[in-house]
Amino acid sequence: MSGGVWFPALGLVAWLCCLRLGPVQGEKVLVVPMDGSHWLSMKILVKELSHRGHEVLVLVPEYSLLMNSSDSFKTEFYPVSFTKAELDGKLNELADGVFLKPPEFTDLFINVQRLVSFTSLQVKGCESLLNNQPLMSRLKDGGFDLVLTDPFLPCGSILSHVFSIPVVYFLNGLPCELHAKASQCPSPPSYVPVAYSGNTDIMTFPQRVKNMLMYIMESYLCRIMYVHFDDLVSNYLGDNMNYKDLLSQGAMWLLRYDFAFQRPRPLMPNMVLIGGINCAKKAPLPADLEEFVDGSGDDGFIVFTLGSMVSSMPEEKAKQFFDAFRQIPQRVLWRYTGAQPKDVPKNVRLLKWLPQNDLLAHPKAKVLMTHGGSHGIYEGICNAVPMLMFPLFGDQGDNVHRMVSRGVAEKLGMYDVTTENLLAALNKIIHDKSYKEKMVMLSQIHLDRPVQPLDLAVFWTEFVIRHKGAEHLRVAAHHLNWIQYHSLDVIGFFVIILLTVVWVILKCCMFCTLKCCRKGTSKKKQQ
Amino acid sequence: MSGGVWFPALGLVAWLCCLRLGPVQGEKVLVVPMDGSHWLSMKILVKELSHRGHEVLVLVPEYSLLMNSSDSFKTEFYPVSFTKAELDGKLNELADGVFLKPPEFTDLFINVQRLVSFTSLQVKGCESLLNNQPLMSRLKDGGFDLVLTDPFLPCGSILSHVFSIPVVYFLNGLPCELHAKASQCPSPPSYVPVAYSGNTDIMTFPQRVKNMLMYIMESYLCRIMYVHFDDLVSNYLGDNMNYKDLLSQGAMWLLRYDFAFQRPRPLMPNMVLIGGINCAKKAPLPADLEEFVDGSGDDGFIVFTLGSMVSSMPEEKAKQFFDAFRQIPQRVLWRYTGAQPKDVPKNVRLLKWLPQNDLLAHPKAKVLMTHGGSHGIYEGICNAVPMLMFPLFGDQGDNVHRMVSRGVAEKLGMYDVTTENLLAALNKIIHDKSYKEKMVMLSQIHLDRPVQPLDLAVFWTEFVIRHKGAEHLRVAAHHLNWIQYHSLDVIGFFVIILLTVVWVILKCCMFCTLKCCRKGTSKKKQQ
Repeated sequence: MSGGVWFPALGLVAWLCCLRLGPVQGEKVLVVPMDGSHWLSMKILVKELSHRGHEVLVLVPEYSLLMNSSDSFKTEFYPVSFTKAELDGKLNELADGVFLKPPEFTDLFINVQRLVSFTSLQVKGCESLLNNQPLMSRLKDGGFDLVLTDPFLPCGSILSHVFSIPVVYFLNGLPCELHAKASQCPSPPSYVPVAYSGNTDIMTFPQRVKNMLMYIMESYLCRIMYVHFDDLVSNYLGDNMNYKDLLSQGAMWLLRYDFAFQRPRPLMPNMVLIGGINCAKKAPLPADLEEFVDGSGDDGFIVFTLGSMVSSMPEEKAKQFFDAFRQIPQRVLWRYTGAQPKDVPKNVRLLKWLPQNDLLAHPKAKVLMTHGGSHGIYEGICNAVPMLMFPLFGDQGDNVHRMVSRGVAEKLGMYDVTTENLLAALNKIIHDKSYKEKMVMLSQIHLDRPVQPLDLAVFWTEFVIRHKGAEHLRVAAHHLNWIQYHSLDVIGFFVIILLTVVWVILKCCMFCTLKCCRKGTSKKKQQ
Repeated sequence: MSGGVWFPALGLVAWLCCLRLGPVQGEKVLVVPMDGSHWLSMKILVKELSHRGHEVLVLVPEYSLLMNSSDSFKTEFYPVSFTKAELDGKLNELADGVFLKPPEFTDLFINVQRLVSFTSLQVKGCESLLNNQPLMSRLKDGGFDLVLTDPFLPCGSILSHVFSIPVVYFLNGLPCELHAKASQCPSPPSYVPVAYSGNTDIMTFPQRVKNMLMYIMESYLCRIMYVHFDDLVSNYLGDNMNYKDLLSQGAMWLLRYDFAFQRPRPLMPNMVLIGGINCAKKAPLPADLEEFVDGSGDDGFIVFTLGSMVSSMPEEKAKQFFDAFRQIPQRVLWRYTGAQPKDVPKNVRLLKWLPQNDLLAHPKAKVLMTHGGSHGIYEGICNAVPMLMFPLFGDQGDNVHRMVSRGVAEKLGMYDVTTENLLAALNKIIHDKSYKEKMVMLSQIHLDRPVQPLDLAVFWTEFVIRHKGAEHLRVAAHHLNWIQYHSLDVIGFFVIILLTVVWVILKCCMFCTLKCCRKGTSKKKQQ
């Protein structure tokens, strides 16, 4: 059997065909992105939309981490009410403690608190935009056909509502599964593992008990997590709307989701899976990197990165890594911006930036050492490279858990890392062939699709424009409240009828019995 | 905006590209089809699989309605324990009463009883196959990679289980939503209308009460409807398995479903929507038909057919139609095998068979008069032809209800048809532009897709072969029973704990109160 080899090519050729046969051109798309790694994958779609002739305008706050102007699309920088120092401070706060203190049960709550603190700053940025009357007027008169946004922040959804334009969401998922709740997508806690639960989709009874408890707790945390968003939404759109209500108006959910990575679960008609959108395109390596990895011989090389938000670590911790790398034959490419020690091993090269996907596509790539962000994971899966994972925060714990349970990765807590356990884990992944074999299978499944994720994302974004919001894909459940959705009012109605019938029957019986008794006593009296 | 014009072409070119880049060839596919119109659309996929180099064997009972040998694929005819006369008798029984008696509430039960009676014969055919030891041995040794079947009958699923081969289902849907139940696909009765309920997806409280009642009744009818299948399955595969359990093992559900026609609802990862697969390919009309329809002028023509199972009607009923047709300027093509009256109007041509999709693709096609089978409906939608509908039995009532509620069709009960109401309905559809306009919109939505349904069907069929059953797309809910799925055991556990805690607290309180009281009384006594 020829396997999935021809499918990427099919997607590409199909794509070229679209261009030749007549692309849908000239629509105006307003993009409201989320900063950080979220932007890196969204930018791929934004560039492609622009490339296909759409007029794209990206709204960027004056201070951001990774967002800049581009030749591929127009950007509009807007002033914000926070400083660059504040932004950096919040970012550092997020990464704090990862290296310095042991993991605890309370991490979940600390994570939530940090996330709330981080997003509160973003909300400030959003307020700056919404209160910028001249800019808002210009945007309103801009004749946009669509808002494309990352719903990790509420600004795009609010703009789409205010301007009455359909909105397309581009996301990996939202904390406490708000994307599922807002799209009315069923997530039975009996087999859909709750975040941070440590469960897979097959659970024992105690695991299901834990899952249900965390499902209930999640509803509570959800309120705390989105309190700033809810306030913002009700301030601008009225008291009877919260963030979930606003999100539910979304026309299309482009989910960076794939069943090679995530567990199978129900989906909705307006959900499109575009997991792996970030690893479809590969470029040749720069000459010096090509030389470095080519020179690694049969032993190959390791790629080590902790994502766009963490690129250094305390010297003592880094030493553990350097000492381990010194003892292996593989070469190591490490994205590292910290203080560079004097005695960096010869087989290690430290770089401020890595072309991660292109490196992983090299046949000599042996292991990806990663924090477990979804982008890196998809790049690892696309290129069939097994992983050593160090979950830091956010959804990374669950991501890592998924990969480890599939037998394609090992996990080490960053606090627990020692030279010895690093060496042991690396040797296990490199020499036990099962990791690579399982990863190749996962990769084949992931790459085997009729249309490439980027083509799908463009198609369904344009579909929403063509069909004015594609209302026919939104379920009627959006018209129901929680009680109605679960038919509790109907069940209550049946119970009332049943009780009434029982009551009437009982009353009749009692009446008859009473009458019989009376007759009996009067007869006896007469006798 | 350029609309969805380029997408069919995109699918075709993509398809040609697949062929050029290297098709997946040489897999052995065992096809167990369902007779009648079901076979007509499945045959399209079977032919395409064969065309792509797969070795396809179709199992055909010696007596059937529409299944024959073909040059495109191999067929194996097997003897059955019923006669051709019995088969025809059952078929006539199904169509009985449609023209002769007014519709009643009890029709639902009569329909169920007829369906059970009809399928009992098919079950006999299946038993003949399963008991045919020489054929079964040959099939077992045939080295098949996949079973492709219509689960309207259980034989294919049983063979896949016995031979331990993955099974792909090709279907429109199953009575009492067994396909949703077996694939663990949620169908909340609060917004998913139950068959025969007459509801849409937006319901008032009384409609939701009715929907819930019919949902409960459906569960009861389900048992009656599938009793022969359940018996057959438990006879061959053991007592602890019924048809739903067997169906749940399906690797892929190719559903002739589309949200231009059906209402949006949750889906599962192993469901692929291929609605409209039967109308993708168009052929030129035979010369005489081309001449007839071309000669219809600006008034255009009407296509009239009641499906593959009903092609004649009582003379008196036919007269109503002829009298109506005599009074309209449109020409009429009618699939009619009944006794031909002497005075057939000049504008009417009666034919034993119609190239329906090719006729509807003609720009002069004005109205499709149809019974509301899913095939005809998709052909109408594909070609944007509004409809006059006469639901006869099965799912046709619901299909017609859906089209009428979208404003693209009018409905007439076959029993109530008169020359007058026929004329009124036809004139309304032809002269009120809203029918055509709405149908064009529906058609644009339906045709606007990244991959054509036939290409999708082939891709996902081959996908199941490539990935040995594609287990990663089946939800873990299949491991749970009803109580576990709904977490009732977990909720019960919580209730027990809660009650225990309350009981312990109450006991403690009572104990303390008692002690206090005793102390009080003994003090009083001492005083």
